[in-house]
Amino acid sequence: MRTRNKPWAEDMLVNDTKVVMNPESKKGKWKQHFNNDNPIHIEVGCGKGRFIRETAKINPNINYIAIEKNKSVIVTGVINAKDVECSLVFVPGLVQNLTSYFDKGEINRIYINFCDPWENRKKWHKRRLTHHNFLNMYESLFENVGEVFLKTDNKELFEFSLNEFLNSNWCLKNISLDLLKSGADNIMTEYEQKFCDKGMPIYRCEAKK
Amino acid sequence: MRTRNKPWAEDMLVNDTKVVMNPESKKGKWKQHFNNDNPIHIEVGCGKGRFIRETAKINPNINYIAIEKNKSVIVTGVINAKDVECSLVFVPGLVQNLTSYFDKGEINRIYINFCDPWENRKKWHKRRLTHHNFLNMYESLFENVGEVFLKTDNKELFEFSLNEFLNSNWCLKNISLDLLKSGADNIMTEYEQKFCDKGMPIYRCEAKK
Repeated sequence: MRTRNKPWAEDMLVNDTKVVMNPESKKGKWKQHFNNDNPIHIEVGCGKGRFIRETAKINPNINYIAIEKNKSVIVTGVINAKDVECSLVFVPGLVQNLTSYFDKGEINRIYINFCDPWENRKKWHKRRLTHHNFLNMYESLFENVGEVFLKTDNKELFEFSLNEFLNSNWCLKNISLDLLKSGADNIMTEYEQKFCDKGMPIYRCEAKK
Repeated sequence: MRTRNKPWAEDMLVNDTKVVMNPESKKGKWKQHFNNDNPIHIEVGCGKGRFIRETAKINPNINYIAIEKNKSVIVTGVINAKDVECSLVFVPGLVQNLTSYFDKGEINRIYINFCDPWENRKKWHKRRLTHHNFLNMYESLFENVGEVFLKTDNKELFEFSLNEFLNSNWCLKNISLDLLKSGADNIMTEYEQKFCDKGMPIYRCEAKK
């Protein structure tokens, strides 16, 4: 989904207390940043932030960090989270840099919602956020156990992801091949809502390491 | 798929050397029956037997047992396997009776192809051949390791099966959400061929215990 460039985004992000512009400076210090010992869950590619905001609202004992590379997109998430009672900060940043943002054990759950499926060429598969190179990186961030929760509308990416998880010895559970039909509790992303409105299936799984 | 009743089926089955009418009498003695020490793989619900016949043809070092409750159906499998060079026998029997047919360790792979999805009512789910009650029974037949290879055209059954396998601590691999598109080697059942001709996806996985 393309978003119009917002030249004012940078200024707004810099001046918002819910935004961490230099996550590298927080590495090893996130508990101090949140000023509590609660678990920290992150979403990579949070887009406009509906999913993580609504998730944070109903889980006050978890700290959330929403990461998104596109500043013109994440700024909408920041605006929409204003005055919302929850423990949530936004980071304009890259999933590729997670090890620069977090020490081992600082986070224990990663949400990946509707990431780019990179479907056209096999040589692009290593860019998929569930490629085993990424899974190994996520694992390196966990101390004892950690989880990845994945949602996608792309069947081929989902198939790929299941096999990548299994081949890397992650434990899968709660696999859904049509999330809406399954009747499970589900907080939708903005993208997901549009997709579901068309009656298309959403794939979901939980993977634990 | 309904098949016309064949009153002559019983007579033909009784007199064919490739058919074992009393599998209980072979329990613990299948290696003697095949007169070798090769592994034994079975298919439950073999229908007209195309899958297991073609699989047996290219795997001469495996013994195969094709099980099917409907005598009017399995008799076609027997006829089609006549003069085919392979180690394959047919058993008119029930999956529910597998523990009466086999001692622990006698078989180490079970193929389940396009079993009844029993999809309309939750109380029927225990009839599904991948319900955990069945998985526990299959496991009881294996000595060290054993595998179940599943194919289905029913998405809901497949989702159910993946979660049943995972919840029962089976290891999954080679999950496919669209077998034809995946380009994997695949021997089709008669039913599968018709389904694929319509462009519908086939789901497949391998589960190891």
